[in-house]
Amino acid sequence: MLRVGIIGASGYAGAEIVRIITQHPHAKLTFISSRQFKGKNFTEIYPAMKGFVNLKYSELDLEKIKAETDVVFIALPHKIPMSIIPAIIDMGKKVIDLSADFRFSDITKYEKHYQPHTAKKYNDQSVYGLCEVYKKNIEKASLVGNPGCYPTSILLPLIPLLKSRLIKKESIIADSKSGVSGAGRTPAHISHYCSASESFKAYKIYAHRHTPEIEENLNKAAADNISIIFTPHLIPMSRGMLSTIYVKIDSSACENDIRDCLNNFYAHNPFIRIYSENNFPDTQNVRGTNFCDIGLKTDPSGQNLILISAIDNLVKGAAGQAVQNLNIMYGMDETSGLNNIPYPL
Amino acid sequence: MLRVGIIGASGYAGAEIVRIITQHPHAKLTFISSRQFKGKNFTEIYPAMKGFVNLKYSELDLEKIKAETDVVFIALPHKIPMSIIPAIIDMGKKVIDLSADFRFSDITKYEKHYQPHTAKKYNDQSVYGLCEVYKKNIEKASLVGNPGCYPTSILLPLIPLLKSRLIKKESIIADSKSGVSGAGRTPAHISHYCSASESFKAYKIYAHRHTPEIEENLNKAAADNISIIFTPHLIPMSRGMLSTIYVKIDSSACENDIRDCLNNFYAHNPFIRIYSENNFPDTQNVRGTNFCDIGLKTDPSGQNLILISAIDNLVKGAAGQAVQNLNIMYGMDETSGLNNIPYPL
Amino acid sequence: MLRVGIIGASGYAGAEIVRIITQHPHAKLTFISSRQFKGKNFTEIYPAMKGFVNLKYSELDLEKIKAETDVVFIALPHKIPMSIIPAIIDMGKKVIDLSADFRFSDITKYEKHYQPHTAKKYNDQSVYGLCEVYKKNIEKASLVGNPGCYPTSILLPLIPLLKSRLIKKESIIADSKSGVSGAGRTPAHISHYCSASESFKAYKIYAHRHTPEIEENLNKAAADNISIIFTPHLIPMSRGMLSTIYVKIDSSACENDIRDCLNNFYAHNPFIRIYSENNFPDTQNVRGTNFCDIGLKTDPSGQNLILISAIDNLVKGAAGQAVQNLNIMYGMDETSGLNNIPYPL
Amino acid sequence: MLRVGIIGASGYAGAEIVRIITQHPHAKLTFISSRQFKGKNFTEIYPAMKGFVNLKYSELDLEKIKAETDVVFIALPHKIPMSIIPAIIDMGKKVIDLSADFRFSDITKYEKHYQPHTAKKYNDQSVYGLCEVYKKNIEKASLVGNPGCYPTSILLPLIPLLKSRLIKKESIIADSKSGVSGAGRTPAHISHYCSASESFKAYKIYAHRHTPEIEENLNKAAADNISIIFTPHLIPMSRGMLSTIYVKIDSSACENDIRDCLNNFYAHNPFIRIYSENNFPDTQNVRGTNFCDIGLKTDPSGQNLILISAIDNLVKGAAGQAVQNLNIMYGMDETSGLNNIPYPL
Repeated sequence: MLRVGIIGASGYAGAEIVRIITQHPHAKLTFISSRQFKGKNFTEIYPAMKGFVNLKYSELDLEKIKAETDVVFIALPHKIPMSIIPAIIDMGKKVIDLSADFRFSDITKYEKHYQPHTAKKYNDQSVYGLCEVYKKNIEKASLVGNPGCYPTSILLPLIPLLKSRLIKKESIIADSKSGVSGAGRTPAHISHYCSASESFKAYKIYAHRHTPEIEENLNKAAADNISIIFTPHLIPMSRGMLSTIYVKIDSSACENDIRDCLNNFYAHNPFIRIYSENNFPDTQNVRGTNFCDIGLKTDPSGQNLILISAIDNLVKGAAGQAVQNLNIMYGMDETSGLNNIPYPL
Repeated sequence: MLRVGIIGASGYAGAEIVRIITQHPHAKLTFISSRQFKGKNFTEIYPAMKGFVNLKYSELDLEKIKAETDVVFIALPHKIPMSIIPAIIDMGKKVIDLSADFRFSDITKYEKHYQPHTAKKYNDQSVYGLCEVYKKNIEKASLVGNPGCYPTSILLPLIPLLKSRLIKKESIIADSKSGVSGAGRTPAHISHYCSASESFKAYKIYAHRHTPEIEENLNKAAADNISIIFTPHLIPMSRGMLSTIYVKIDSSACENDIRDCLNNFYAHNPFIRIYSENNFPDTQNVRGTNFCDIGLKTDPSGQNLILISAIDNLVKGAAGQAVQNLNIMYGMDETSGLNNIPYPL
Repeated sequence: MLRVGIIGASGYAGAEIVRIITQHPHAKLTFISSRQFKGKNFTEIYPAMKGFVNLKYSELDLEKIKAETDVVFIALPHKIPMSIIPAIIDMGKKVIDLSADFRFSDITKYEKHYQPHTAKKYNDQSVYGLCEVYKKNIEKASLVGNPGCYPTSILLPLIPLLKSRLIKKESIIADSKSGVSGAGRTPAHISHYCSASESFKAYKIYAHRHTPEIEENLNKAAADNISIIFTPHLIPMSRGMLSTIYVKIDSSACENDIRDCLNNFYAHNPFIRIYSENNFPDTQNVRGTNFCDIGLKTDPSGQNLILISAIDNLVKGAAGQAVQNLNIMYGMDETSGLNNIPYPL
Repeated sequence: MLRVGIIGASGYAGAEIVRIITQHPHAKLTFISSRQFKGKNFTEIYPAMKGFVNLKYSELDLEKIKAETDVVFIALPHKIPMSIIPAIIDMGKKVIDLSADFRFSDITKYEKHYQPHTAKKYNDQSVYGLCEVYKKNIEKASLVGNPGCYPTSILLPLIPLLKSRLIKKESIIADSKSGVSGAGRTPAHISHYCSASESFKAYKIYAHRHTPEIEENLNKAAADNISIIFTPHLIPMSRGMLSTIYVKIDSSACENDIRDCLNNFYAHNPFIRIYSENNFPDTQNVRGTNFCDIGLKTDPSGQNLILISAIDNLVKGAAGQAVQNLNIMYGMDETSGLNNIPYPL
């Protein structure tokens, strides 16, 4: 059994990793930390899991991590991970970091949108953990930068089409919508029930830091410089993310060609479900799962394409993909711990 | 006091007209009909209004309408209104129809997307009731086709900019989101609590009948042939609609020029609130009101513009705009019955 | 026009008073304070009311209050009001306090459940502002302790029946449920969207400080010592409170006798709506209004009675009743500012 | 592998059985029927489960049931099951019926509250499937009447205390609250999103047909005639049920004695979680699981006890308990198919 630690296991993503590892056939949870809750039982904070999880929150203790874990998930705010990961990597542990600190190949982009990077040498060896796209690299990685939720929902439908040159590189628009859990567990005005309920709104227009992360990976797929217009919105619900993506078709490709391209690209990827004609994703269908559901439709002119993707922002958009990365890094079945059946409602 | 009748007062839009007329200083409700609930008190169906409304649902009785009303709202499904409105107009009554039957200037468009039109002569005299844009025509109208909810939310931000030639006529995309009340009061799978809750999805992609209604009015504003990509989505909330509109700037106009254009166009229109820089609409801010809130932002390149509009789909998107049309048709203060203060949450 | 000040106008109850006073025909808002938001426009915090409210938050400034107001609402946490109200009363202003500080006749009860009382002399002159029950006293009061939301919903159905000796004084159980806005505007774990959504739970069992407030007023009605079992619960919705109250009938009274008693007691009280047989309140029917809706049913044995009351916790349970108290204190129509028509949904 | 059929697999309970059997290690789904959807794929109706379920809905075909199944779940409305179950039992199949048709020992009670019973002989052999209480009987049963959701949530906390004579048999009150899925999948006004959202209400006061079902089983536990006051309410959420139960203590038992009684009674029952002092159930903690969480508190007088139980109405209240019954009937581990880890939110 792989011994798994989670640094920052009190937030929603951390708690989801706890859930998934608890049902993982080849991994067991041996260490969880939380500055806020150290000394408390995990199930005091997340009583739903009473009877399944029997661990106390520790402080961030590198000696314990060294002794008790083989691999570590980091679910802390940006900037902190790069200060602790080098030491953990140097112990010979593998690390999957859910922050943005190790997501960028071009570190100047990171530094422009976040802050100075203090562990550039380690960034050089890190791999962007978009599982279905970079699997080969992830297999050999010791340090994975787990993708953001919006990038996951936008990149998965676009990358195969850009690689196949079926769509134009210009005028890509992603209108994305997220459930409130994306705002994190720490109470804030935006996630107050009375602020979010009966409310729908856009935020961080032209200013969300997921934009450079998306663009860097679109560029790699297209081998060109791509700009995207990306608008995040907040939905009055807990979990789920849907991206409606507008692109122009660059070829004589018809809707079925595009669907075939996606089906082929994701043929052996159990977490991607491509929808058939006139069927479209619904966040409810992926709630609590690691699926990315994708639907599409071309307009009557055949020149415009709408792609719609749905994920659970906490699972495929965070904790689920993180464990999928773990599975790939250790050569385990990619679905280990992640194959719970979705609920009908 | 103007005597007001409502044909089809059991649905959500009809019930909202009841609410608004009940607080109208110059109009009183004298007749309401419902096939389903005839003989029942309105407040049996809508108990919230106990003590305010004391009317029973009648059958659709043209003699009663003739004797007891001056003006009639029709809140029935498409196709039925055109079969009864001619008789009511011929009585000398004014009519505000909330269906699509009298919204189109080009009746071939109506017939293509709905069904054969059976009252073309009356359609010739009808006016499209987008209040802020067609006020002059509405003042003289006897028959108003009240706009759809999506068209209202999309046309109000776009028309001034097209008229002023500040934006390009190509590549307009409206990504719109509606609360569940838009699906109507009749129980259906899509509006079941368990279908809608924790669910966000697109529907009728490239196929919603509001598209030709939007395009006809964009064409008028631009004096040209305009195509729009319009995608409706369903939000897990009762009331509210938000449209995120992507356009390209056709000029050297900057964000403030665009904001000024909107502010000028809507200067004397009490229901349009243009947001200042970096402030954006939220459906919660317009809930239960006749406001259309509009925010905007240009991207760093200065070439792309995002417009965001928020309305209450049942008020400015239906019943409220209908009463605003009434006010305009009778030369009353446009805000009569519509000036309740919004709730802070 | 009465000049109205609100100390603590940034929370939900304060903001609701702003809304109500803004539509009040005989009162105008002249002063609002907030420690957190001083210097900001009210509509920066509550943008829904843009165009209706044009006031900035001040500091708590007694000189301004002296110069600019006739009457002051206090919407601050318990303990602070008793430290500032004496000075305001001594200026000759009238005060309506929404905290618990001036709700108790028996100050030892207050001190047992809250803290030492530092303004006992002023408490002696304060009146408990349960409008329909203590109207005569409120008319002459300068200082009103506005009731808690749970007490309002529980006392209104019970007091007439206790006074008429129709029900037993023993074994009264109130199972109450509140929307999340009752937890206040300050972000907290309990009011986080993801904590509240798909969650229903009891809290503060046998330990809620509204219990002694309820009991003191039941005692007055029954002229005896009454204990109540009161259990608050949290509902996943923004506004609304419903109390299901279980009592035993103490007489040969039948359901209609009990309904008659309530109808008679509240005959001239516009905000109490007694439901007819087999009709029961729904929080949706009172949302945004100052109504208290009451329904009831006796069991087949005729010995047990269920009373159900519904209010909007922020209106009749806080801000609305506070303005109703203002209206009574100044001899104005009790419904001034409070007669907006309820929404059908 | 046990071959499992489901008659009525289009409703919510039926679909949940599909989900659970799909992850069951010793059972496989071989037959599902639906009158409404016959010929359609299950995943057309429940697309969340695409990739997991690959069955089409059949008609109710007894020959297929005979050939293809070992055991059959019936999830049809009351009255229909008793017309088809005899034939299936006579084939030698085992049957778990989710309707009320085979829940009553005293068939006159059934006939009083439902309709004439047309399969009394089969009712004589049926067992009430409240797993933790009647396990010994269920082990030998061929026909199980699966309990109602409200009865499950009310009986589980009460039965051990009645058997141990710790609480009085009089004055038991259960104030219960259910999510909207309890109203079923068929669209209806009560389950319309706009009816349920921001709404909380009681229904069927003194008139819910679960009352006689509850009382019959309380009687058995107490060996006496017990009447209960039971009030169901509707919560604006999809899944979950919470019962707040008020009883009087009949002894010198203190809170810990009562907790011990429950802990002992349920010691070897993996789905019952008794909460420690001052911790109380929340429906969110049991969402999607087969748990019944129970909390309790005595009042300062030591005479009154509040019990709070939480279940997922579709799982422990329907489909989950049904599969638990299956597991018991076939001597399998009681948790087979039911041990998915709860979500942290």
